Amino acid sequence: MQLRTDIEIAREARKLPILEIGAKLGIPPEDLVPYGHDKAKVAQHFIRGLADRPDGKLILVTAINPTPAGEGKTTTTVGLGDGLNRIGKQAVICIREASLGPNFGMKGGAAGGGMAQIVPMEEMNLHFTGDFHAITAAHNLLAAMIDNHIYWGNALEIDARRIVWRRVMDMNDRALRDVVVNLGGVSNGFPRQTGFDITVASEVMAILCLARDLDDLEQRLGNIVVAYRRDRSPVFCRDLKADGAMAVLLRDAMQPNLVQTLENNPAFVHGGPFANIAHGCNSVIATTTALKLADYVVTEAGFGADLGAEKFFDIKCRKAGLKPSAAVIVATVRAMKMNGGVAKADLGREDVEAVRRGCANLGRHIANTRGFGIPVVVALNHFTGDTEAELQAVRDYVAGLGTEAILCRHWAEGSAGIEDLARRVVELAEGPSSFAPLYPDDMPLFEKMETIARRIYHADEVIAEPAIREQLRVWEEAGYGALPVCMAKTQYSFTTDPSVRGAPTGHVIPLREVRLSAGAGFVVAICGEIMTMPGLPQTPAAEVIRLNAAGQVEGLF
Amino acid sequence: MQLRTDIEIAREARKLPILEIGAKLGIPPEDLVPYGHDKAKVAQHFIRGLADRPDGKLILVTAINPTPAGEGKTTTTVGLGDGLNRIGKQAVICIREASLGPNFGMKGGAAGGGMAQIVPMEEMNLHFTGDFHAITAAHNLLAAMIDNHIYWGNALEIDARRIVWRRVMDMNDRALRDVVVNLGGVSNGFPRQTGFDITVASEVMAILCLARDLDDLEQRLGNIVVAYRRDRSPVFCRDLKADGAMAVLLRDAMQPNLVQTLENNPAFVHGGPFANIAHGCNSVIATTTALKLADYVVTEAGFGADLGAEKFFDIKCRKAGLKPSAAVIVATVRAMKMNGGVAKADLGREDVEAVRRGCANLGRHIANTRGFGIPVVVALNHFTGDTEAELQAVRDYVAGLGTEAILCRHWAEGSAGIEDLARRVVELAEGPSSFAPLYPDDMPLFEKMETIARRIYHADEVIAEPAIREQLRVWEEAGYGALPVCMAKTQYSFTTDPSVRGAPTGHVIPLREVRLSAGAGFVVAICGEIMTMPGLPQTPAAEVIRLNAAGQVEGLF
Repeated sequence: MQLRTDIEIAREARKLPILEIGAKLGIPPEDLVPYGHDKAKVAQHFIRGLADRPDGKLILVTAINPTPAGEGKTTTTVGLGDGLNRIGKQAVICIREASLGPNFGMKGGAAGGGMAQIVPMEEMNLHFTGDFHAITAAHNLLAAMIDNHIYWGNALEIDARRIVWRRVMDMNDRALRDVVVNLGGVSNGFPRQTGFDITVASEVMAILCLARDLDDLEQRLGNIVVAYRRDRSPVFCRDLKADGAMAVLLRDAMQPNLVQTLENNPAFVHGGPFANIAHGCNSVIATTTALKLADYVVTEAGFGADLGAEKFFDIKCRKAGLKPSAAVIVATVRAMKMNGGVAKADLGREDVEAVRRGCANLGRHIANTRGFGIPVVVALNHFTGDTEAELQAVRDYVAGLGTEAILCRHWAEGSAGIEDLARRVVELAEGPSSFAPLYPDDMPLFEKMETIARRIYHADEVIAEPAIREQLRVWEEAGYGALPVCMAKTQYSFTTDPSVRGAPTGHVIPLREVRLSAGAGFVVAICGEIMTMPGLPQTPAAEVIRLNAAGQVEGLF
Repeated sequence: MQLRTDIEIAREARKLPILEIGAKLGIPPEDLVPYGHDKAKVAQHFIRGLADRPDGKLILVTAINPTPAGEGKTTTTVGLGDGLNRIGKQAVICIREASLGPNFGMKGGAAGGGMAQIVPMEEMNLHFTGDFHAITAAHNLLAAMIDNHIYWGNALEIDARRIVWRRVMDMNDRALRDVVVNLGGVSNGFPRQTGFDITVASEVMAILCLARDLDDLEQRLGNIVVAYRRDRSPVFCRDLKADGAMAVLLRDAMQPNLVQTLENNPAFVHGGPFANIAHGCNSVIATTTALKLADYVVTEAGFGADLGAEKFFDIKCRKAGLKPSAAVIVATVRAMKMNGGVAKADLGREDVEAVRRGCANLGRHIANTRGFGIPVVVALNHFTGDTEAELQAVRDYVAGLGTEAILCRHWAEGSAGIEDLARRVVELAEGPSSFAPLYPDDMPLFEKMETIARRIYHADEVIAEPAIREQLRVWEEAGYGALPVCMAKTQYSFTTDPSVRGAPTGHVIPLREVRLSAGAGFVVAICGEIMTMPGLPQTPAAEVIRLNAAGQVEGLF
């Protein structure tokens, strides 16, 4: 029985000095840039020196559609990394960094849970190594340069009504969603309406996470479309000559962050783009670096497999040339029950039939993921109240699809509880795989959206106003037709209605808006309300967050 | 002849690992929190363990009123630290951190110059150890909590017209000076007008720099007045319960940053409050820590002695219980000539008479500084074009006042060029001193302002509207009467007219506005236009800042 909280477990961690964690990966101390004794960045010149090494195998951890019951995707990612190390494989975990702002609204999160966590937890929920602050600064420098350019005469003829570059702050601050700037008269500029997003929604975040190296970073920054002229021609970041200075601000942030699990195995925690208007994966540079340093790299994608895995494959893997060797889909008996129609309050009662009904959701994610050409196994993340009959119902269902659901007890037992999954993942990864993205680059943008909607969501069609289709056509003519699409949709359902669980068919995906992320390199298809600046709740967590006498943070977790 | 630029010299620095610099001060490696290999923070628990140690001697470096000719105050601070180490004293330098934003407008600055610099220069001009980002986050969390409180019902009855807490960003962005927030309807809040200041203007910055320790920090944060009610009663940060979470965000930022000079001597670079609306000194915790670790601590204050030294003595030393042992006033032949009426373009010509005339400005600063009860010596910072006759004119003038002007060549020669000054400083510091602030705590606020105006600026009077005097009276009744005052005035003149050089008398100081910094613990007296959010110039430095092939920053310096 596990009675300690995640933070209590994390505080009792016997961390190794980060230089020792780096040594496990063969990184010399001079090539690690320490941030305290338990965090370090991997120096760019060391990364450049790895180019000729062979790659390890890349394992994706994804999940069913998230439910309020909780699935434990990150916990399983961490547990599997520890499990692979336990059975003698050199494995590195790659996950995203946490956003600072939301911690002051609701409670902050662990990276993993129970005995499968990455530490140091407090720092990772606060400033960590400053990456998000650097992204905020780079983003806002560009914003300042746009208004400054107009102030000094607007030589580029920017249409002030068509500035699409907003500002960002890593804070939950609804007051900033919609603002008027440049007030105060002649010396302050020309008033106009704009707003702030939270930093993780910045295109700079997505760019940092997709850039191969610093040169690619600067190139992509230059490609950002910040505004349009009266004739609708785009104004780029490089027209404002902001790309170089932004790259300077991001130089350190481009170096992956090395930390460790409770079991002292290496983890890269780097980058954190939104999983709706962006692709929701940790940085390419962390993943590619890890692949050079380890036999196995375990990573995860945001939300469920319909959004997260699809973007991981079609955006990140496509663009970075990654070839995943296997995928793990995380499911729980509780989530199956909710997908089978059980309310959260009733999850404590055994209900084998509901589990069976709910498995349809899991089944579709298995088929979808296999459709990318890689082998799939299900991690059945154990919860205390699960009954043997319920667990067996999931095992039987998955076996019927020709694969396996393997019970995992890493939350309670750490790596010892996930050895079976680790062994199976190794078998799968050493077998054949033939990864391919869902659609080719040269498919028209709207067809790409239709392909995802039909093949992944099992929808009948995508509907869109003529103006949206026309916008896509204009972008195709401007040379953006080969970009992948990034679907922004509720994560709770295969449909655009968050209340529809299970494996629905015959629905329609309404395309409300499209946005061009020309620097990141994708077209965002918005199919629902997307909040890019959260607010604080009535009683923010910040009210109880404070330092205790020992200098530890109370109230954050 | 010195032909290399500051950045070239800085890049050729033979830095020691920061752990070795710490070892020179007796800081064990586990009590240093490294940020890379050349920067570290000193752990709080190590600092707490120093309480019973005796203090070293505190030396203030200040200057004449700044002129476009340049005086080299920071260069002399660094040089003197190196010089004291050279003659066998254990000395630490304490200076402020640089603000990130302005580097993208005009060129960024070195910490010192020539052979008297602190390194690493690039990092110190960019994110450094993240202190300013932490201050930005803490400041803006409080702002978000104010609007959020009103959004959810405004139980504290904040008068939305009387919110005095703005937001901050470490960026030159004039578009944010004056903004309307909370637009967009019901879900976003109640529209109101506010604005952004640059981070160094944040009261949180001043608080961090005046707080003795983390407990004191949290207490002061709680004391911040964020708004007033309809009945004019103040609403405090602690009423919103933001103080604890802000302290959490500032925990790491409260640890002083250790770096080194080109000569591998230790320097604390920590905190960076404005020198107009705030007190303009590095952090108290850095200075008090340095005093426990070294025989001599060399520090500086912002602007000339009339503003900087006065605030150093009357705010920082008074509040932190510091007893400076001696002061060095930096002057140059060139600046004396400008004070004597020579235009910048004509500084290349010998003009001994102009030097003599300009010495009046220096003379007043000498007298003012002595008025605080400490011995004074003049550092005559050598420039290549100075003639012996000009130098002698300064020496003679200063000798006539009963002290010495000592020629210093640290810019060209490093510590070897400043041994004479170092020896003289040791003599003075070992002699008697009887430091006392200019005015007692219990003097009424307006009288404090008058005292500074008469005794330091040699003005005839301070004039103010009745409403301003009434405001001061209200604050005195509310218990703020014992606070020191913080003068916000042009740094270029003893008057409020920046063009009046020399040592004017008989002028009037118009008090335009007063502000209460209840957390920092001072009342700001604004006597002129104070810009708290700079703009970018027509051609921002950002346009040419970029990474070169070696990963170094080009265009920043």
